[in-house]
Order: sequence, then C-alpha cells, then structure tokens
Amino acid sequence: MKTAKYQNFEELSSPDQGPKRLTALRKELKAQGLAGFIIPRTDMYQGENVAPADERLAWLTGFTGSAGFCVALMKTAGVFIDGRYRVQVKNQINKVFTPVNWPESSLAVWLSKNLSRGESIGFDPWLHTVSEIEKAQSDLTNLGIGLQPIANPIDKIWKDRPGNPSSKACVYDEKYSGQSHIEKRTILAKQLKRNKHSAVVITLPENIAWLLNIRGSDVAHVPIIHCVGILHDDASIDLFVDRGKVVDILPHLGKAVRCRELEDFAEDLKKLSGTVQIDPENLPFAAVNILKKAKIDYHYSDDLIALPKARKNAVEISQAKNANLRDSTAMCEFLCWLDYQNIGKLTEIDVAISLERFRLENSELLEISFDTISASGPNAALPHYRVTQSSDRILKQGEVMLVDSGGQYLDGTTDITRTIAIGVQKHHVCAAFTRVLKGLIAVSRLTFPRGITGRDIDAFARAPLWEAGQDFAHGTGHGVGHFLTVHEGPQGISSKSTIPFEAGMIVSNEPGYYLEGEFGIRTENLLVVTSAPDGNFLHFQTLNFVPIDKKMIVNNMLTQEELAWLNDYHQKCHDKLIDRLSPAASRWIKQVTAPL
Amino acid sequence: MKTAKYQNFEELSSPDQGPKRLTALRKELKAQGLAGFIIPRTDMYQGENVAPADERLAWLTGFTGSAGFCVALMKTAGVFIDGRYRVQVKNQINKVFTPVNWPESSLAVWLSKNLSRGESIGFDPWLHTVSEIEKAQSDLTNLGIGLQPIANPIDKIWKDRPGNPSSKACVYDEKYSGQSHIEKRTILAKQLKRNKHSAVVITLPENIAWLLNIRGSDVAHVPIIHCVGILHDDASIDLFVDRGKVVDILPHLGKAVRCRELEDFAEDLKKLSGTVQIDPENLPFAAVNILKKAKIDYHYSDDLIALPKARKNAVEISQAKNANLRDSTAMCEFLCWLDYQNIGKLTEIDVAISLERFRLENSELLEISFDTISASGPNAALPHYRVTQSSDRILKQGEVMLVDSGGQYLDGTTDITRTIAIGVQKHHVCAAFTRVLKGLIAVSRLTFPRGITGRDIDAFARAPLWEAGQDFAHGTGHGVGHFLTVHEGPQGISSKSTIPFEAGMIVSNEPGYYLEGEFGIRTENLLVVTSAPDGNFLHFQTLNFVPIDKKMIVNNMLTQEELAWLNDYHQKCHDKLIDRLSPAASRWIKQVTAPL
Repeated sequence: MKTAKYQNFEELSSPDQGPKRLTALRKELKAQGLAGFIIPRTDMYQGENVAPADERLAWLTGFTGSAGFCVALMKTAGVFIDGRYRVQVKNQINKVFTPVNWPESSLAVWLSKNLSRGESIGFDPWLHTVSEIEKAQSDLTNLGIGLQPIANPIDKIWKDRPGNPSSKACVYDEKYSGQSHIEKRTILAKQLKRNKHSAVVITLPENIAWLLNIRGSDVAHVPIIHCVGILHDDASIDLFVDRGKVVDILPHLGKAVRCRELEDFAEDLKKLSGTVQIDPENLPFAAVNILKKAKIDYHYSDDLIALPKARKNAVEISQAKNANLRDSTAMCEFLCWLDYQNIGKLTEIDVAISLERFRLENSELLEISFDTISASGPNAALPHYRVTQSSDRILKQGEVMLVDSGGQYLDGTTDITRTIAIGVQKHHVCAAFTRVLKGLIAVSRLTFPRGITGRDIDAFARAPLWEAGQDFAHGTGHGVGHFLTVHEGPQGISSKSTIPFEAGMIVSNEPGYYLEGEFGIRTENLLVVTSAPDGNFLHFQTLNFVPIDKKMIVNNMLTQEELAWLNDYHQKCHDKLIDRLSPAASRWIKQVTAPL
Repeated sequence: MKTAKYQNFEELSSPDQGPKRLTALRKELKAQGLAGFIIPRTDMYQGENVAPADERLAWLTGFTGSAGFCVALMKTAGVFIDGRYRVQVKNQINKVFTPVNWPESSLAVWLSKNLSRGESIGFDPWLHTVSEIEKAQSDLTNLGIGLQPIANPIDKIWKDRPGNPSSKACVYDEKYSGQSHIEKRTILAKQLKRNKHSAVVITLPENIAWLLNIRGSDVAHVPIIHCVGILHDDASIDLFVDRGKVVDILPHLGKAVRCRELEDFAEDLKKLSGTVQIDPENLPFAAVNILKKAKIDYHYSDDLIALPKARKNAVEISQAKNANLRDSTAMCEFLCWLDYQNIGKLTEIDVAISLERFRLENSELLEISFDTISASGPNAALPHYRVTQSSDRILKQGEVMLVDSGGQYLDGTTDITRTIAIGVQKHHVCAAFTRVLKGLIAVSRLTFPRGITGRDIDAFARAPLWEAGQDFAHGTGHGVGHFLTVHEGPQGISSKSTIPFEAGMIVSNEPGYYLEGEFGIRTENLLVVTSAPDGNFLHFQTLNFVPIDKKMIVNNMLTQEELAWLNDYHQKCHDKLIDRLSPAASRWIKQVTAPL
C-alpha cells in the first residue's frame, strides 16, 4: 500500500461499526434518563486536528471531516455537516445516521422537530465552548428542551479507545521566536493588570506553545502538546500538562512556570481570586461552570494571545521568509518533476507522495502542515478533498491537477496551492484560471489604511470571477501561525473577517473556482502585512515564490498592470530560487518564468 | 443681493442672539428643576430638511449644519457636531457655546464631566427616536443622571417662532409612481398579517408620500407634507395631517385613507389593538411612551417601507432615466457656459445661480434636490460646503471648481457632482482627480452576486487613492428617492452599508479627495442596480450622462479597461444628449467627449 511519512491514504471511516456503537450509546443514555447526546468533532482544545483518542465523532458515525457534530437521539441520529462535507458524509456514514445540512438547519430547529418539551439531552462540558453552550441553552430553553452536562458516555462504551498522546515538549529557540517567554508573559501580565484582571485561563495549546516558546507533536501536523494554563498578573503561570511531556524542558520553563498535572486544572480554577479573564469562544463550558460554582469572579474577554501571536515580530517574519523560500524550492523541484512525468499511470497519491519526498529532501522538514490536497480533474472541484486509496485516480491529459500543501519547519509554517495544467486545457478552464489569478493579483497589489479588515477587501479576490457570473464558496484567506497552526486567527480575508490588519500579520490569499463534476482551480500565496512607505498605510508582501502555470493564462484577459505584476513575480521566483535548484529544475524555472 | 429661486446665500446664523436666548432657556429649565435640556437639529419627522418652525438648534445656537445637537446645562452648553462641521461651527456660534467633537465625545461622557449624580436633564420626546433615547437612558442610568421627557421649552421662549408649514399635498400620478396606493397598501397589509401585526406606525413623511402617491412642499428641497400615519392590516390607513393640506386630494385618497388631525395621533395610538409594528430608528420616543402607557402590545421591526420604496419599479426606473437625461442636458449647458466664462470676476454664487438657471430653462424643474455645493479652490476641500455672501469667492485660474447639485422633477430626483479645472492644474491635483475617477469606474464596472452589500464594495472606490496614501472621509454612495429625498435608505456604499443590493435600487457613486486649505475633488454619478445577463448576478447602470473633465485626467494612470470605460461613457454622453443641446453646447460636447 502506498504511503507517505506524514500522511496516509486510508479510508479512516468504518461505517459498518456505526449501528452497533449507536445502540450501545443509546442504552447508556437511556440508563441516565436522557433523550440524546451531542458528539462534537472537537476535543477540549478546540483544535482542527485531534488525537486518535478524541476521534469520538468518527468512531461513532464514521464521518471523518474536520468539523461537524452528531446528535444521537433514541430514534434518529443527525450528523451535522457544513457545505464542505455534503458529498463526503454520504459515503462515510451508515443509514442509521441522517446527514443534516448545517448551519442551514440549526440544532434548535432540528431538535424541535425530533424531541418533545420536557426531554433533555446530554453533552460533555469539556468538549464544547462557553459560547456554544450558552447559545444552545438560550435556543433550547425556549423549546422546553433540557441540556445536561454529563461524563462522556462514548468514553465508557469505546472499549479499545487509544491512550492520550504523550509527545515530549521541546524548547522553541528564541532565534526562531524572536522573544523570550519571560518577555511575553511580562507584557501580557501588564495587560491583565491594566484590565484589573488577576489571571487569564488559556485552553488553546497553540497559545501556550506561543507563550512559553515550546512545541510538541501530540496531534498530526500541528506542533503542539496538549496542555492548558493559567497566567497570573505577576507573569507567573500554572501549566497543566502530563509531567512526562515537560520533564526535559524544566530549565527552559524556569520557576515562574509551575508545572501541574492536567487533573489539577479543575481544582486550581476553584482557588483563583480577583477577576479572572476568560474567552468564551475557546474556554470549555466545564471550566466556566467550575468558576461559577466556586463563586470566582470572571470576565468575558477576547483571546488575550490571539493578537500578539498574530502580529509576527521581525525575527518571525525573517524566519518565515526563509521557511517559505525553502518550501518554494521543494515546490519548484516537485512542479518540474511533475512536468516531466508520463501521464497515464501517475495517480493523485503518487503526486502527494512525491511532493512530500521533495519537501523531505530538505532535511529541515518536521511535518507537513496538513494532509496534502492532491486532486485531479473533477476531484479538484472539492475544495477540501482528501485522497484515499478508493478515491485515488490517474491524472489524465486535458485535466487540471490541484495541489494544496505546506510544510512545518522550525522557522515557519507554509501553505501554498498551485493548479497545474496536465496537457492542453479547454478555454473555459483557462479563462477561470485567469480570473482566479486576477483576483489573487488584485489582493496582492492592495495598499490600504490602518483599520481595514479582511471583510473590506474580500471582494477584490472575487470581482474578476463575478464579472463572469462565477464565485467561490470559501473565504479568500486565513491567518497562518509561526511553526504552529496553519489556520490561525484572528485576521483573515472573508466576509466574516472583522479584525483590522496590522503589520506582521501573515494571511493566505487563495481565490478559487470550482465546477462540480468537472474541475477546480485554486492559486494560493502567503502574504505578510507590511507598513507602506507612507506609514499610515499597509500593504502585502508575498512570502512564497513558485511560478504560476502560464499554460493556463489567457494573456489578453490580463491588464498591463496584472501582466507586469505576474512578470515581476516570476522574475523574483527565478532570481530567488535559481541558485537553490537542481540543474533540471533550474532549466525548468527559466522556461516557466520567462515573461509573458 | 444675489439670489436664486430655490436657494439663498444668506448667513442663516445669528450668533449674537445666542447668549440672550440661552439665558432665557436656562431660566425656564431652572423653574422646572432641570439641570439641562437637549436641543436636536431634527424635527419629529427625522428628516434632513426641517421647516423654519423647527430650526430650534439654529435659533438657539446659530449653528445651521444639517446634523448635530446642543446640550444646554446651567454653566456650559455643548454643541455636538460631526466631522463635516468642525470649521463651520466655529464661525456660527457665540462663545457661550462650546463645540464638542461628536461622536468621538459621546453624550454620556460629556455629561459625566459636567453633571453630578442625581441631576436630570430634559428632552422633547417628539424630537428624538426610540433608539436614541433608549441608548441615552442606558448610558445615563449608569451615571446616575436622569433623562426627563418635557414639553419643549424652546417653543415657549421663542416668541416669533414661525408657523408650521402648510403646503398643499398634490397627487403623484401613477404614470410616475408605477403603482397605485391601493396596491402598495394591500401588499404591505399582507406583510403585516404574515408578521401577525395588526398595524404599523409610520412617522417618516417620505414613507407616507411614497405609500399614498402624494407629494407636497412643506420643507425646502424635499417634496413632502408633514404627516404621520397608522397602516392597518386591512390595508386602510389613518392619516394624521392638517386637513387643509389634503382637502383637494380626498378623491385620490379614497375612503380607506381616513384623514385625521395631527393632534389626534396620540389619542389614536392608545386605541390600537393587536400587536403594533414600530421602527425604533424612526419613531419618536413620545409615541412608544404612549403605547407603553396604554398597554398596547408593540414589536420593534425594521422600517416596513424602506425596502419596497428603495426597489424602484420598472416605471420608476424608466422615469428616473428621463429625469437624469433632462438633468444631464442642463448640466452640459451649464458646463459649456462655464467653459466660456472670463475668469476673474465670476464667483461661487454666480455659478450656483447660473446652474439653477440652466435647470430652470427646462420648465419641468420643481425644486433643486439640495443647496448646490458650489465650491472653488480651498472651499472645495469642505465636502459639505454651503456658499454664503461672506464665504463667496472669485474663481481663480489654476484652481478647481466643485459643483454638487441635483434637481427635483416629477419623474425623479437627481444628484450629480463634477469637478472642473479652471485653467491649468498642478500635477498632484490631476493625479488625485484621476485616482478618484479610477475609483468611480471600478464601482461602475462591478458585477456581483445577490447578497452583496455596499460594505463589501466600498473599498473599490478607495483602492486607487489608497495606493497613493490617500482616502476620503465620507461614504462612497447613498440611496436616492424617486421625486423624494435625495438621501434615501436603506442601501448605500460605505463601511456601514449592510443591506444587500437588489435590482431597482438607485445609489450614488461619489468618491472624492480633499486636501484641506488647497483643493477638493469629487465625481458623482447615479447608478441603478440591474440584473446581469446571468440572473443570479447584479450590476450597475449609470443614469446620468455628463462628461468628466478630461483636462484633469492623467492618461497613463488609466488602464486600457478604464480608458475604454471612459471613452464609452463619453460616447454615450454625446449620443444621448447631442440632439437635446443648444448649438453651442453641441459643439462643446463634441470636443469634451472626443476619445482619449
């Protein structure tokens, strides 16, 4: 079976087990007098990637998407999935489960149709955020439906449930982070004092990784360890984590970082004094419940770490440039390789494995940022396609190949998408490719005043598509972490992005176009927000340098300015990479970056 | 003294009277045990233009801006003005009044500095909306400051206060409105029934004018009569209005329109049954207070009439095209005239009078849409400049002339701005003019899917300016009424515009650039939202056809596409107007529309 180092292509789903497991769950619920239970995809850390022990949704239903939840009632069990997973869910779940289009159908509306007043459903208070439960409570109270925090019944019936991850934390050197954890803690502690807050509860592991300059490998693709913390206004922190994970880095952590076991977290919350700052969008509901019962004064606030983490410092930006240049080199070797392949046998999995091989050739790769999306022909029309043994298909002449991938390096996290023409493409494919490129260029070229948010500029990526009656059904871009999560808030480029851009923020720029059953196109670069020569204004600087496939560009659809941008970008790709590439790839890059 | 038919150039302000009047007001307040009183610019109809009898703010303070309010306390009196009026206010008020920069300084913060806990200020509950007072109440309760509805003390001390306006209402023919008032009432009544509301209270005269197909002339520039109404779910309506105003149009109104005196409004509110729909953004606080005291069930809702009024029907659009073409003809005659004037004596007032004369030459002008902004040189840097005898200045070679104006015709309301080069302009002026033009073109050329709002596209008007570190401090566009208010909601183009565009909506497109003390540029067209060939998408169609001054266009700053748009627009100006223009203007338009 074909396999890669950091990605597998197995069917993760076992739909056949669903009915048996659902029956066991229902029995358990009945014993507790409950009419149902909510099983979310998330773990208590609310990350996109969860450990095998936390794959409760997949274990029960077979559905393996990165978002969604199941509500198991006595006679029906709904699997709530968003627009990305409408097709996938059908292949992954047994008929005892019913897909529910979410958020079009809300939890409350669905429950009101399937439950009677007076009935109650359970939920695991550690797996849902405060905001989620408060919203559900307010909706369900109106319907007379109860919502009851319980110990997770899945954990009881899941006999061979894997153990929790136990990766060792490592020190993230200041030469990569640009700032010591003492400095970071001191600055945040000052902010707490200004807010008259005694402490802040931090339950996102990536926030602790950033704050303490530590990394780990508890989940796939994201270099974190599972832990939570309480930062106090004296800049000391209680770190709740399996001691084994941090025993080697105690000297780095120092005395102001008090290592406690995860099990102590609940007890320690009860001992807090003063006003404690919490972010209801991240905090598990269980934690606020503990604070409430212990009569601890708490205050809802935005994530204290999101902005400082998002504003990359000068060291981080310089590192990110290195990482992206290294990653661009691998991408170019890969694209050159692909250009010289015989088409007829090569499959999507072969492509994903090769790409990883090129990234691995550079010994600095530590992980891939996410499962590579290696999608040919109609598969490319699924923006979040994951190739498996059964979906794998042979690349064909006349089809496009969409590859969305990234690497985790000590000096940065990368994320890049290129769509490559396999043979000659039809005109409407090239036209769509060119429109997507025009959108990418429009965003790349923007200068804008401080205060402008992603919402204000999202339409620039779409306007060229709109002109042809086309659009794409995802955001234009997301923030990116620094050797951390590849999707990082709070900024982004979408109709929902209301956080003003600030210098140092990294954001992806990835317009696309998808024609179901036919083809898909996406071109993605990473941008860093930079002060424009006029200090009151900001602009974007592109971080990665990988040629965009000229074979699909319809020249006369580009304006002179767009053409100039493209030629300049290609010139930079050439100049920055020529000395780093193999002889074959050097020859290749000369060709593919020759001006249009 | 120079004067125009529909506009005067007098100093409206008499700051010298301020101290005396303020003293009288304070005496009155003291007698009532109040620490202060709020005097808003608005009347009970919340319109932009108020009758002389409602000019309470100007009477007291001397300030004549179109927005703002005064808070008169015993020792100080703040005049709260927004960014547009920072300069103007200084010349209009006596030193017993203090300008307050609003909304940067909020009412609550200002009061907290000038009042003590336990003190109370009064307000006239008919002059403030429900939302305004609810917000103020919640802010002031925290400060321990009372807010008390009282009979307006200004009306008591203003001895020679003019009478209320008494214009006669006239019928607005269906050939202009495209829909009978019976139809409109029936459709809205059905909507009330669907919402399970028994009635809706309507207090915006322009809403009643639209609903009943009537017009009037109670205030300057806006063809309305002062009236309010209660529309019931049986499609009948109680119309509260001075009977003299409607006595001639009773046959048009018919039996389902019950005419009552304005004085009966309060009593009739108390008699309502069922659930009454009200819009807190428009409704006077007094009205909700009456409902509350009478225990009438009411429900907050968006303005029921705003959207149907904003979505112009086919007849209205076709009429608006006529009106704009007629108005464009007058504008071209005017611009031709201006081009042949000797510069050296001509003043801003001369220009405003001439422009009105050209509009009047066409006998169909009924009013101007607003006081013409006729601004030369540095005066053009004030986006809302109103020329008066004392501000009037002679046009000079090398300066720009900004003219923002519009006409009220039976078949539509127009609004257009052109900036004209008087002699040769400096390069940076031409560059700014060209950037503003690029913004105008970018918005004009957009195609976009349904669901898109003005907020999503506002940045297209700004991006060319942003590129040069420039911007403008007002929205890009506002909705426009059909022989009604020149500023009409709910749609617009600005960071605050969250209403999706729909076919038939008219919106202005008016980017600008202002350099204080030097010059100002604005170019404005009216656009109508139209279904694009692909029915799911919308685009804009320009309604007016007036050449844009080529003398200030820096050709090489325009893309080929922008140049093509401009040449096409100019060709249309030529083709649509050539047969309507005088011989001189015909020759002129040939020159000024010759392709670049």
